[in-house]
Amino acid sequence: MALAVATSIAGAREAMGAARRGGLSSGLVPTMGALHEGHRKLIQVAREECDWLAVSIFVNPTQFGPEEDFDTYPRDLDSDLAMCRQSGVDLVFQPVRAEIYPATHRTFVEVETVTSHLCGRFRPGHFRGVATIVLKLLNILGPDRAYFGEKDAQQTVVVRQLVKDLNLPVVVRQVPTVRESDGLAISSRNRHLGPQERRAAAVLFRVLKEIRTLVLQGGRDAARVRRSGLRLLSRETRVQVEYLELVDPETMQPVSEVRGPVRAAAAIRVGGVRLIDNLLCEAADR
Amino acid sequence: MALAVATSIAGAREAMGAARRGGLSSGLVPTMGALHEGHRKLIQVAREECDWLAVSIFVNPTQFGPEEDFDTYPRDLDSDLAMCRQSGVDLVFQPVRAEIYPATHRTFVEVETVTSHLCGRFRPGHFRGVATIVLKLLNILGPDRAYFGEKDAQQTVVVRQLVKDLNLPVVVRQVPTVRESDGLAISSRNRHLGPQERRAAAVLFRVLKEIRTLVLQGGRDAARVRRSGLRLLSRETRVQVEYLELVDPETMQPVSEVRGPVRAAAAIRVGGVRLIDNLLCEAADR
Repeated sequence: MALAVATSIAGAREAMGAARRGGLSSGLVPTMGALHEGHRKLIQVAREECDWLAVSIFVNPTQFGPEEDFDTYPRDLDSDLAMCRQSGVDLVFQPVRAEIYPATHRTFVEVETVTSHLCGRFRPGHFRGVATIVLKLLNILGPDRAYFGEKDAQQTVVVRQLVKDLNLPVVVRQVPTVRESDGLAISSRNRHLGPQERRAAAVLFRVLKEIRTLVLQGGRDAARVRRSGLRLLSRETRVQVEYLELVDPETMQPVSEVRGPVRAAAAIRVGGVRLIDNLLCEAADR
Repeated sequence: MALAVATSIAGAREAMGAARRGGLSSGLVPTMGALHEGHRKLIQVAREECDWLAVSIFVNPTQFGPEEDFDTYPRDLDSDLAMCRQSGVDLVFQPVRAEIYPATHRTFVEVETVTSHLCGRFRPGHFRGVATIVLKLLNILGPDRAYFGEKDAQQTVVVRQLVKDLNLPVVVRQVPTVRESDGLAISSRNRHLGPQERRAAAVLFRVLKEIRTLVLQGGRDAARVRRSGLRLLSRETRVQVEYLELVDPETMQPVSEVRGPVRAAAAIRVGGVRLIDNLLCEAADR
């Protein structure tokens, strides 16, 4: 089937309605475009699990702070459509801003607690914007399943919480992070890195792996494990650390003692570019 | 058909799903129970417009402030069920608190601007609780239409805004206020009024009618019209005024000049009881 493109909510609903009336199971991969191998993986997993697949492309202004990179966030619609076509996507929903946020828009969704640390702490309002746009997209399309990348693990937790709390009939799926050969998580923002910054950025995943090793070997004192990680990061002079935490994977709250699985999560800046990554860490004998 | 009662979300969804599969149009009247003639009117209108009708009964804790009357809010389930049965309701959804707000609940909906005056100003958090519960009930039941009373006109505006902003496929209907013979709007809280307070409370509607008359006669200066209303209210010594405003009926923002339809809205306290009411006012020759 050929790729359909809808720019209006009505058009997207019509396409989705036809699929539903045909008894097809449906999936949605919400994206901000500038699609890369991480998105391709999301689309592949979704393609295998769903009869009918939509990808939304919308650079959501409400999840960017006033000082953040909304204006310079990469946009590349031709290449995005080519990837969706190659990957067998059925519908691309690509609305303009006024279709999603008319001037009269006044409603926002807040997910508490799970947003109080990590990116939620350093990007006030970010997850409010994320929760609002995800809820809108789910309401517009009504998919059976929605797909999110593990690189944005806190985002998945926020979406799971909102889906549960607001009684939405959708299954939230998380797909593993895709990495470059040196371990750097693939991100639309990587293209803004210069060659030296790009090399320096690889420290992020090395630190997370080191933390995973310490936890695997029985490290239980989270503060101590964290300090080892910060020491490693500090050796890379081009890198500024925004946060590095060990958190409970369900609640995204920092732990003081590693008793079960923890997620090591970090945000750094290299040059002007903000990068995040995380890794699930589990001790061997639990 | 006999009245079904569901206490679980799954049970309510099952009943609703059966109706939908049968091709029936559906309606929801969300209530906090203690059903009175105002609710009966909502149910009657809904009954005429929908093939299948649900009434929810849930005293929503998140819309009460810490100093408000959640604990003393009237509850009378037997009488509620009798009215629903008489009125031909198909389903009563009557969940316990933990079904709606498990201990892990963390998501809330904020509707801005339309909540900044009137009850929104005097009951901080009230409309956040209203928006959250209404969204949850709409998501649980997925009705084609939902019914609200004009007495809570700001609530209807909040719900309309949230439905539009969050792209929910439901029609919001507002049903006129039902009044006692002296004009007092029927409310579950009226039963807390003593006989003298009950007589004093009738001033609320008299004032709103007086404002409507002033506007009908061409009164354009909102401050002046408002002062006339406040003067009338001040004659009733048992009454304390919380607010009396002339607002735009769409945005619920106070107007300074009456140029089109306005809604006169007031909240008063009589004894310990808080009462609200409102009236749409329009000049004759516009």
